[in-house]
Amino acid sequence: MSKKLTSRAEDYSKWYNELVVKADLAENSAVRGCMVIKPYGYAIWEKMQAELDRMFKETGHQNAYFPLFVPKSLFEAEEKNAEGFAKECAVVTHYRLQNDPDKPGKLRVDPEAKLEEELVVRPTSEAIIWNTYRNWIQSYRDLPILVNQWANVVRWEMRTRLFLRTAEFLWQEGHTAHATKAEAMEEARLMNNVYATFVENFMAIPVIQGVKTESERFAGAEETFCIEALMQDGKALQAGTSHFLGQNFAKAFDVKFATKEGKQDYVWATSWGVSTRLVGALIMTHSDDKGLVLPPTLAPNQVVIVPIYKGEEQLEAITEVVNGVVKDLRSKNISVKYDDRDTLRPGAKFAQHELQGVPLRIAIGPKDLENGTVELARRDTLTKEVVALEALNEKVEGLLAEIQESLFNKAKAFRNSHITEVDTFEDFKTVLETKTGFISAHWDGTNETEEKIKELTKATIRCIPLEMKAEEGVCVYSGKPSKGRVLFAKAY
Amino acid sequence: MSKKLTSRAEDYSKWYNELVVKADLAENSAVRGCMVIKPYGYAIWEKMQAELDRMFKETGHQNAYFPLFVPKSLFEAEEKNAEGFAKECAVVTHYRLQNDPDKPGKLRVDPEAKLEEELVVRPTSEAIIWNTYRNWIQSYRDLPILVNQWANVVRWEMRTRLFLRTAEFLWQEGHTAHATKAEAMEEARLMNNVYATFVENFMAIPVIQGVKTESERFAGAEETFCIEALMQDGKALQAGTSHFLGQNFAKAFDVKFATKEGKQDYVWATSWGVSTRLVGALIMTHSDDKGLVLPPTLAPNQVVIVPIYKGEEQLEAITEVVNGVVKDLRSKNISVKYDDRDTLRPGAKFAQHELQGVPLRIAIGPKDLENGTVELARRDTLTKEVVALEALNEKVEGLLAEIQESLFNKAKAFRNSHITEVDTFEDFKTVLETKTGFISAHWDGTNETEEKIKELTKATIRCIPLEMKAEEGVCVYSGKPSKGRVLFAKAY
Repeated sequence: MSKKLTSRAEDYSKWYNELVVKADLAENSAVRGCMVIKPYGYAIWEKMQAELDRMFKETGHQNAYFPLFVPKSLFEAEEKNAEGFAKECAVVTHYRLQNDPDKPGKLRVDPEAKLEEELVVRPTSEAIIWNTYRNWIQSYRDLPILVNQWANVVRWEMRTRLFLRTAEFLWQEGHTAHATKAEAMEEARLMNNVYATFVENFMAIPVIQGVKTESERFAGAEETFCIEALMQDGKALQAGTSHFLGQNFAKAFDVKFATKEGKQDYVWATSWGVSTRLVGALIMTHSDDKGLVLPPTLAPNQVVIVPIYKGEEQLEAITEVVNGVVKDLRSKNISVKYDDRDTLRPGAKFAQHELQGVPLRIAIGPKDLENGTVELARRDTLTKEVVALEALNEKVEGLLAEIQESLFNKAKAFRNSHITEVDTFEDFKTVLETKTGFISAHWDGTNETEEKIKELTKATIRCIPLEMKAEEGVCVYSGKPSKGRVLFAKAY
Repeated sequence: MSKKLTSRAEDYSKWYNELVVKADLAENSAVRGCMVIKPYGYAIWEKMQAELDRMFKETGHQNAYFPLFVPKSLFEAEEKNAEGFAKECAVVTHYRLQNDPDKPGKLRVDPEAKLEEELVVRPTSEAIIWNTYRNWIQSYRDLPILVNQWANVVRWEMRTRLFLRTAEFLWQEGHTAHATKAEAMEEARLMNNVYATFVENFMAIPVIQGVKTESERFAGAEETFCIEALMQDGKALQAGTSHFLGQNFAKAFDVKFATKEGKQDYVWATSWGVSTRLVGALIMTHSDDKGLVLPPTLAPNQVVIVPIYKGEEQLEAITEVVNGVVKDLRSKNISVKYDDRDTLRPGAKFAQHELQGVPLRIAIGPKDLENGTVELARRDTLTKEVVALEALNEKVEGLLAEIQESLFNKAKAFRNSHITEVDTFEDFKTVLETKTGFISAHWDGTNETEEKIKELTKATIRCIPLEMKAEEGVCVYSGKPSKGRVLFAKAY
């Protein structure tokens, strides 16, 4: 079917771009920077959504929906947030098209249908939501508000890449309101934990939890918690963030509440989100030169069955056996697809399922029918074995669990072997360019040093790990005192 | 808690608007015509989504996601479709804001960041999707494509009402591609059937299936199938539509395929959608002067339990019993909420749950503890009975099924009693103004007559029913020959 994939060693970036398209996950659209998420890619996102949504509800959150548009006057109310996003806002200025008098059959924007106030297509929804919360909150009895929204957002990025950075993307954004600072801070931590649990257990991607430095914080936040993952090319990827917003948005939108003691106070806020970017992280963590590798939890089909036959009669005999296998596997909640298309040869089917990362492939031919066996192939290790039909159900169940664990362990071993402690700036630069990965180094805590290092090396501080060792030291760049090591890396 | 609802008899429209807000379903936002869907309203929409999504997948469809924006040149390619939607398009013209030099702290649209080509915020996605399908389809082997998208769309309506007509709304839009006309027509019929089944069985709203007249068709369709429901005020509401699009979009976007015989042909298309408008239909079909009435299938909480107590000790004893009840009900997949808030009296809780349409309410006090009973109240009939604890589980299960059926039957009886056959234009006008509802009348099949009747009475042809009796007659307006009765009504 499709031509061979560029290998990771050859050109990692090209490998990624090709893989996304060839595995039928997504493609570029006619709209600059916006992607089409194809059914196979969307099925993976749906599985992520379902699990996250379950976790959000289990922690007491409810879904709601707020407008796509933010009037400019609301958008600019929280100044830091507005400043942070102003440069990438798509703006609606008109509400009507009309026939173009100069070009028959063509349309033009109706100059008479200009909006009095421009509407920003939401790059994030704090402004519109906090403007709404003002009417929802009068007293401490109305708190907390624990709301999440599944939505599309638009950030007019200049350089885009499928899943990793697109002008429009899909995400969820939680927006919570609390009576106390401690409670809001606790919520921000909790949701960062939920993200870490989800990404590790469900996506099999190990992450490091930490907080962002001031310069890397979300615009309008007082603290940004994050989870950071490491891709196979040694670059870091921010997989999710959870923000403690203090009273910034409450002040900007005048959201006050009567406390238990009858005083008036501003409400405390958090927001948190993950996006379709996670699909990019998934691809770049597990996949190989043959294509996608999917953890069983996220695979649209966990098992595919390919019949090897000549003629209708053989196919019928095989299909009869396969029907039993399909039924057995489904009774164990294993998703399975019987690929009996007559338009492709088995070899081409194998290649496609390898490319699309189906965790387990069962092949069954006339010999197998005689012997009561099947051939079982594992996508992650590319190993095959012959399995007796009666042992198949249990075998598959066991292997799916094993693959899930093995993918995580493999990624974790790689990640752990790519955290390097360095103590000199020379080593910093060498490791960054040769070994790559996270660099654990002392930092003097200043914006200036952080900026300078970024300028010189393109590495940024990915996070100050929550589990940072207390360790006195000197800054790898300035030589000034430091209280612990932070993680630097080049990042997506 | 909230003040009394306006009654339906007093002012139906006001009743609806108040109910939507008071029952915490939705509210108007700071953006003209756009609504905020509140958690309780969104929970109902989520249940509708889940069931529809299941039905779409069961009929072989997959989800995908296409861009929010449509470049103007693509939007105008299918001329009828473009003409139909041009007057209500929100248009993005710029991609950046900047500090306003004249107003410190304020932003303005950056005049230098004008898009070369304006982007229409999708009012529907045929254009962007068929432009994409061109690259997905080469041969008959690539067909059919059975894709659905859950998305937000924007139509700049001048007069908006919560759920019923909003500038932004949530919906699903199916877009399928087929090798033959017959197959596409069959798909359009099938999905209209899926909608009818969903709306009747799940939402307990009876519908009439039919096709639209030419003037009421979707812009760009060759046939529009629809389901029409009747609201309690005697106005009709279009609850869903499924369009046979012929080869119009394939021709506009040059989507051809190689047939089995090796010829080139244009692809046949359908599209079909339902939206958050259905929530409006739900409210207007079942609710009463005390508030919302929800069919159990769509109720976020099917059962609410309210403790009646004085002092901590009584509450503890009640809670112990309630915990058992909750566990039992949940084991039957019945959603139940224990409302033990200490900030509201039982009467206020009763009022709130009545307003929010919880199908069954259980009250339990000290007397009940002694007797091993509870008080069980039904929202739809407002009847109460005392039930023995040991019989509760079965009773609740039975009642939920009974309520679902009863709501449907009640709505169907009302609808059936509001289909009136008339044979003179005098009767037509009288029935429309006094009895209201659907009017079944002969029509000569011309656009002119349809227009004239609309102009004189505000009634439109809601549909030509699929199960139209073949009956010779004369047009109620023109006196010209007619082959069967069609359904007229005033409509939302």
